[in-house]
Amino acid sequence: MDLTEWCHLKLGYQFKNLSLLETALTHKSISNQNNERLEFLGDSILGQIISLYLYNHLNDMDEGALTRMRSHLVNGHKLAEIGQKIHLSEFIVLGQGELRSGSYNRESVIANCLEAVFGAIYLDGGIEAIESVVHSLFFDEFQNLPDPNELKDAKTKLQELLQKNGNPLPSYEVIKESGRPHQKTFTIKCIDQTTNIYVTASSSSIKKAEQKAAEMLLKRLDGNGD
Amino acid sequence: MDLTEWCHLKLGYQFKNLSLLETALTHKSISNQNNERLEFLGDSILGQIISLYLYNHLNDMDEGALTRMRSHLVNGHKLAEIGQKIHLSEFIVLGQGELRSGSYNRESVIANCLEAVFGAIYLDGGIEAIESVVHSLFFDEFQNLPDPNELKDAKTKLQELLQKNGNPLPSYEVIKESGRPHQKTFTIKCIDQTTNIYVTASSSSIKKAEQKAAEMLLKRLDGNGD
Repeated sequence: MDLTEWCHLKLGYQFKNLSLLETALTHKSISNQNNERLEFLGDSILGQIISLYLYNHLNDMDEGALTRMRSHLVNGHKLAEIGQKIHLSEFIVLGQGELRSGSYNRESVIANCLEAVFGAIYLDGGIEAIESVVHSLFFDEFQNLPDPNELKDAKTKLQELLQKNGNPLPSYEVIKESGRPHQKTFTIKCIDQTTNIYVTASSSSIKKAEQKAAEMLLKRLDGNGD
Repeated sequence: MDLTEWCHLKLGYQFKNLSLLETALTHKSISNQNNERLEFLGDSILGQIISLYLYNHLNDMDEGALTRMRSHLVNGHKLAEIGQKIHLSEFIVLGQGELRSGSYNRESVIANCLEAVFGAIYLDGGIEAIESVVHSLFFDEFQNLPDPNELKDAKTKLQELLQKNGNPLPSYEVIKESGRPHQKTFTIKCIDQTTNIYVTASSSSIKKAEQKAAEMLLKRLDGNGD
């Protein structure tokens, strides 16, 4: 399948100016004329199209739920999934080193490249063109939107559970910090102030460690944990 | 000045459907029919318009610089400034409690309301209408864009200074955590590994404390500090 055929079949779009698409497919490892600026543009256009879709279709959802829903649809993992589905990685142009290390299959490379392709379509065909491409690529996602409550992060869920029962908020404390600068591991202790039940969890950032700890404490308090 | 006059004079836009504007001006403290959903929409449209402007006008700027420039233009502080300039707070509809506490002058209330007004203009008049309003409200900002290097945060500047001199990265360490959950103060120690010069700084989040510490260490290493 050549590039034009791929555009037609997988994006449902024909470029007037193919060089825009070529730039969108060019990773920074191979040229200064790469896809990073288009990615900047595409990211914001994608955000706007998804926001408008959610605003128009989910009339009873408040801002918090809309924001969670947008993050669920527009994140590196989801974009990489959509990129894989349309075989985007076969067309990404990378430097030799990146090729050898298998970067064309890295989630972030695929996700960023997809955003750049969106930016290129916008510049080439305008807002209607990119809207129609995004709507068709996200069709399955739009048909299967999750319950926005399930998209809440563990810290929020834990807080809501405790507040519902009239209990005080949990406490989070950094109890250990190890490793060299920029490669640290943080250990967090999360305590339910009512029962004094606590858990500890470690991760590369305090935020991640807190989420892990909250997840564990939720399980303990729900009686599902170990 | 009534609402229609204000729109005409300050926004340069006339609403076909004034009730959209009224919703955009309604704070959540007074009604369920408030501006939060419009804010969600307006925020993403503003981001897209600013991104497109920067992409088109700053051809030699890389993605990192474009992203910093966008954050410089689209943040709560700047939006509140623009909102103040057009006397937005005189038209925000708030609950009694919020009125008494002076919320109409709170940066976040004004910034969020301005985003909601942008969302309302988009729904009322389409993308060209909101693009022209945003371009005119941001005219002064666009004429006075800062050097993107000056927009780097203190941690980045410190890192670049040390790397330029071939020195190892600074180390950041949480040395104290005090206060009740959700009202904590974190104290960070930031050490230059070459000279062992260090500073400590405290703030309500680790991120903010690290930035403060980096700022202080930068001054010390530059010889401008105390």
